[in-house]
Amino acid sequence: MKGFLITIEGGEGSGKTTVARYLAKRLEELGLSVVRTKEPGSSFVGEWIRDLLMKEWERKPKTEVLLFLADRAEHMERVIRPALLNGKLVVCDRFIDSTLAYQGFGLGLDITEIEQLNRWVTGSIRPDVTLLLDLPPEVGLERSCNQTVFEKRGLAFHQRIRAGYLSLAEREPDRFRVIDAMKPLEEVLAACEKAVTECLFFRGRLPVRQ
Amino acid sequence: MKGFLITIEGGEGSGKTTVARYLAKRLEELGLSVVRTKEPGSSFVGEWIRDLLMKEWERKPKTEVLLFLADRAEHMERVIRPALLNGKLVVCDRFIDSTLAYQGFGLGLDITEIEQLNRWVTGSIRPDVTLLLDLPPEVGLERSCNQTVFEKRGLAFHQRIRAGYLSLAEREPDRFRVIDAMKPLEEVLAACEKAVTECLFFRGRLPVRQ
Repeated sequence: MKGFLITIEGGEGSGKTTVARYLAKRLEELGLSVVRTKEPGSSFVGEWIRDLLMKEWERKPKTEVLLFLADRAEHMERVIRPALLNGKLVVCDRFIDSTLAYQGFGLGLDITEIEQLNRWVTGSIRPDVTLLLDLPPEVGLERSCNQTVFEKRGLAFHQRIRAGYLSLAEREPDRFRVIDAMKPLEEVLAACEKAVTECLFFRGRLPVRQ
Repeated sequence: MKGFLITIEGGEGSGKTTVARYLAKRLEELGLSVVRTKEPGSSFVGEWIRDLLMKEWERKPKTEVLLFLADRAEHMERVIRPALLNGKLVVCDRFIDSTLAYQGFGLGLDITEIEQLNRWVTGSIRPDVTLLLDLPPEVGLERSCNQTVFEKRGLAFHQRIRAGYLSLAEREPDRFRVIDAMKPLEEVLAACEKAVTECLFFRGRLPVRQ
């Protein structure tokens, strides 16, 4: 696999979309070939699954996991794997860790089992670097302009997600870069860019340290 | 678990729906409390997933498995498990073996992996008896009035499904009853009824051997 997979993770209102857009632009300016994508909703069936997940209906936790994984399976084979095989840099807004954080830590499903499911879907592909945009959920929920079913699950749910994300980052310090998303936006973006370009430089994907 | 789970399996046009309807009626006549259900499509999200699966779009095999499993997760928790906990007889048209036959043997996904996924979704619940309505796919496809995406996958696909089902039945002879679905309808229905009432009698669910 010649490509490079950058994933952006974090709770609601943590700035993932802004970071993904900025990073993609900056990496292109450095002459790299970038594919920016997101989960869920980046394929025909993915858009459809996303719409369903965002609707208000009482769902069982495993149903929710399996719908996110169906979206991921399609996204992997149609977008991420082909892009990586073509040597592209993929910037993906939410990926495997969102399922662990939201449905594992958030809804209380077994983490090891979700990891096995993730692995069944993604095969040997793992993110090269994962930016975790960390901030207190009170602040994130206030910032977010959305009122989706996920945002409505209450503060305790989002606190478990934050703690879960931080424990994932602690367990895989080589892959995760925790970014303080409480800082002013320019500082957040600069920290994300630095984290990613450092990784790219050390992996020989950038000739000069930025 | 006080209930009793009867599943009906088989290829297209094998008569599963007719058998399920007949069995439910006969078992009710014997004074038993029956819930007749099917997969996919027996919950709010299930109907929605069923519609998506029946639409014509090119899907990756794992996406298809995960959508069927999302339907099953919801069906398990909302219909099957509550009915079994209430001591009901559940007659279910398609269940775990359909996924093994269609996406495992039919599409070539790993059988052991699909079994693990099934187990994640169904937990400790296994069918008490599974009727496999066996007939050559040429006959079944001719009989079936539908032209869904599954029917359109061609004869070789349906031959792999038939062979797959038979190998599952061979592996679990205690659970499976293979019914020759080429015989006249009345004989098929009688054979199914006999197979099920025998099981119920030996499990002490019927006082008299029918």
